[in-house]
Amino acid sequence: MKALVIDIDGTLTDEQRQLDLRTAAVIRELTVPVILASGNVLGFVKCAAKLIGTSDIMIAENGGVVSMGFDGPVHISGDKARCQEVLGILGEHFNLEELDGLERRSELALRRNFDIDAARQMLVDGNIRGIELVDTGFAVHIKTVDVNKGTALVEVAKLMGLDTGDFVAIGDSANDIEMIRAAGLGVAVGNAHPALKDVADLVTTGKYGAGVLEALKDSRLYTC
Amino acid sequence: MKALVIDIDGTLTDEQRQLDLRTAAVIRELTVPVILASGNVLGFVKCAAKLIGTSDIMIAENGGVVSMGFDGPVHISGDKARCQEVLGILGEHFNLEELDGLERRSELALRRNFDIDAARQMLVDGNIRGIELVDTGFAVHIKTVDVNKGTALVEVAKLMGLDTGDFVAIGDSANDIEMIRAAGLGVAVGNAHPALKDVADLVTTGKYGAGVLEALKDSRLYTC
Repeated sequence: MKALVIDIDGTLTDEQRQLDLRTAAVIRELTVPVILASGNVLGFVKCAAKLIGTSDIMIAENGGVVSMGFDGPVHISGDKARCQEVLGILGEHFNLEELDGLERRSELALRRNFDIDAARQMLVDGNIRGIELVDTGFAVHIKTVDVNKGTALVEVAKLMGLDTGDFVAIGDSANDIEMIRAAGLGVAVGNAHPALKDVADLVTTGKYGAGVLEALKDSRLYTC
Repeated sequence: MKALVIDIDGTLTDEQRQLDLRTAAVIRELTVPVILASGNVLGFVKCAAKLIGTSDIMIAENGGVVSMGFDGPVHISGDKARCQEVLGILGEHFNLEELDGLERRSELALRRNFDIDAARQMLVDGNIRGIELVDTGFAVHIKTVDVNKGTALVEVAKLMGLDTGDFVAIGDSANDIEMIRAAGLGVAVGNAHPALKDVADLVTTGKYGAGVLEALKDSRLYTC
């Protein structure tokens, strides 16, 4: 395995979203490039990359934003305007609170305080296609179905001169499914969503950062 | 001392901007509220607050943005439009590269690849008042002079029901001067800019995170 792509919240952090400091120290020692892949906005991922000491190549907004350098070129996909239309439709029936509205470039994020399944049913009933609601456990995202962390991994791998099969991918949430599937070794940490565990090559016993350490050892990215 | 307000880059991080993990562990153990105060954008500070485990009250953009909760109300001061006018004037003479343009709400940040003193002289010669260029060592900020981390600390203290004198403040850069002055105990870490050391109550021997640990022990915020 030649590189690692890894989710932040719930994977490198615990349920309170605090960084596992022991795991961060190990990540910092790895000799392969480490790509952070998050549903959060680029500003958040940039901070995590600097603080932890990972690569300047970053995946944000569930794959809708790929940054090829810390202050480098940013590739945006998805369709924020279409997501905003859908927000308008759902907002007629649910009391929705948008998060990080200013910073989001490819999709929208909402506070997790509404009936997500009822909202999904409304999209089905309204024949609204091409848009999905993804619950990461930290926020609900309104995004286009054509963009995800898996499509972003394909993009990043190509730009790095690698194949997606060269990557170990580690995550915990439903928004990690396509990335875990695309990678050579897809890992779900012990606290992961059942749907992610179903598609993972490896499910760790340890949760959160402890699960990451386990995966790094099992994949031989970390051999100490 | 009842609270801590602390800079991120060059204070909690090293010269490569990597978090001092040992210091982060100590910060996480403190019993007083810890407020992060950065020149960076709010998305960056929010990430640092979550990963380290500090308060949801945050100071970003050199005091121009104060957030009173993680996804809570944000108070914006400064005058971004005026900063943009000045950027236009300076841009006629220098090759300037704006950073985080989309995310900034109160001021501007530029890559540190131009003659800052020459640009400052141009502001003086052009009789452009009320605007200053602040070099944090990580970026050059174009900001209004009426807003800084010190004015933000006044605001935060008031909202927390505290006095600025109740705060220990720790920083490393010229943009920390007013905050260090406003606090009850103002600390410059060993790697700090000479202008900050000049106004500090305490200058630590240790640099970066090691200096922070020294200050936490000296101020008795950390007693283990």
